[in-house]
Amino acid sequence: MPETNLEQRLANLEQELSRLRAEFAERRPEDLVCIICFSGEWDKVFAALTLATSALALGSEVHVFCTFWGASLLRGGPATPCRSHKRPWPQRLLDLLMPKSIEDLPLSRMNFFGIGRRMLRSMMKKKGVADLTTLMAEARELGVHFHVCDTSVSLFGWSDAEIGRIPGCDRCGAATFLALALKSRAVFFI
Amino acid sequence: MPETNLEQRLANLEQELSRLRAEFAERRPEDLVCIICFSGEWDKVFAALTLATSALALGSEVHVFCTFWGASLLRGGPATPCRSHKRPWPQRLLDLLMPKSIEDLPLSRMNFFGIGRRMLRSMMKKKGVADLTTLMAEARELGVHFHVCDTSVSLFGWSDAEIGRIPGCDRCGAATFLALALKSRAVFFI
Amino acid sequence: MPETNLEQRLANLEQELSRLRAEFAERRPEDLVCIICFSGEWDKVFAALTLATSALALGSEVHVFCTFWGASLLRGGPATPCRSHKRPWPQRLLDLLMPKSIEDLPLSRMNFFGIGRRMLRSMMKKKGVADLTTLMAEARELGVHFHVCDTSVSLFGWSDAEIGRIPGCDRCGAATFLALALKSRAVFFI
Repeated sequence: MPETNLEQRLANLEQELSRLRAEFAERRPEDLVCIICFSGEWDKVFAALTLATSALALGSEVHVFCTFWGASLLRGGPATPCRSHKRPWPQRLLDLLMPKSIEDLPLSRMNFFGIGRRMLRSMMKKKGVADLTTLMAEARELGVHFHVCDTSVSLFGWSDAEIGRIPGCDRCGAATFLALALKSRAVFFI
Repeated sequence: MPETNLEQRLANLEQELSRLRAEFAERRPEDLVCIICFSGEWDKVFAALTLATSALALGSEVHVFCTFWGASLLRGGPATPCRSHKRPWPQRLLDLLMPKSIEDLPLSRMNFFGIGRRMLRSMMKKKGVADLTTLMAEARELGVHFHVCDTSVSLFGWSDAEIGRIPGCDRCGAATFLALALKSRAVFFI
Repeated sequence: MPETNLEQRLANLEQELSRLRAEFAERRPEDLVCIICFSGEWDKVFAALTLATSALALGSEVHVFCTFWGASLLRGGPATPCRSHKRPWPQRLLDLLMPKSIEDLPLSRMNFFGIGRRMLRSMMKKKGVADLTTLMAEARELGVHFHVCDTSVSLFGWSDAEIGRIPGCDRCGAATFLALALKSRAVFFI
């Protein structure tokens, strides 16, 4: 009978459409932008935070994963971090050399022991470009999610008080962040 | 009546399918490849332009955003740029140190004040690998779209004549480029 | 006749749905993660391999393209590479300066002629973090696909024996790898 035939085809179509919808929902990139902040150099952090706030302005949810040298980004902050606990000497030596706060980060080029960075900052001030501390505070207030790499913090031997720039910042591993990154529209390794 | 019932289901299906199609069209990545050329080092620019021309050959539309150190990529060009206008001293000092043209860009490693780069270029010439100037000209002729970061140009105090390597190159902000990047198949931060 | 009308609409729907399915299949990103390992610095290679093994653990197929400085990643290996064949002097000089094996790779920051790297490695050992050689072996055993850039190998004048760290590693060009990258969920340029 033709009607049964029509009914069968219709049922098939309905089933197929719902299958396609499910598949599509699972595979389409979400409105997420993920940024891996690895190198932790002043200019690159500046680029990362500019991308973060721009993506936010475009309506995306933004996640920044601070790892390795980039973990320095979260050091310091309003409260003076407690650095009195004992550390083995390679950590203490590295600590001496690593930037203590966001404004100590070196430039990736032409740093010249901080002179280049100072020059750049004075140029930015004259042109009315926001500096790194302001940009970071802005990013945080606007709702950029910051994550700090668990392995990096434990490797550098930092206490929780030392990564106090972003209170309540999430501490997670690379795999957890990558799972998020794989669902996102764009991932940046900076 | 069964027929009305069939008709109703059919109308639902048609509606759902067109909704899914619209959703899919909005969310699927387009045939775009976006490259953020940030570090402006000879070898990294080489990689960026190789990716750009390869993506073009694969049928994608390609956009390159030259920002920060990467803005140097667009300096110089056929016409001698006019550099006579007065600048404040930090800009003039930085200007003295920054590469004036594409072949002055340093290597990201083993540059040794330009000796490393010269060695590499001689090796490339012997092997018949295109040099940066040729690659850049090729990219432009084949139709790679170049954009220069508005903030960088204003920060470095360059005149329009100075970024004359690509005549008519688009000058835009990070957010404008990011909007394009979020629709693309792949984004590279180089 | 109403039934013919229904039949026609049904046929249209079936056709449209199969068209949408095909379009979707062609454009959706596959379960692939592609990593371009360009800079070949110890810490960045560490990040690249951590991402590679994490992506694998999340169920993705992972491809790593070792190019330029990153090609060093594949040098050395179990068999002592034969380095006796004659090379022109710029290649020999570069050869003298380039890392011979994975543990010779410099840090991207604070390398201090290898002292920084040694310190970092000792810190990692104390914390029980796997070192680069172990991570590389793991990546290979778990099934990360390694590709070496054809142009780089020919440019540096390496013999096949010299890139013996990953036996049977695929040698391909940038365009071939990019074609893969454009289908993937995430691409990293590291």
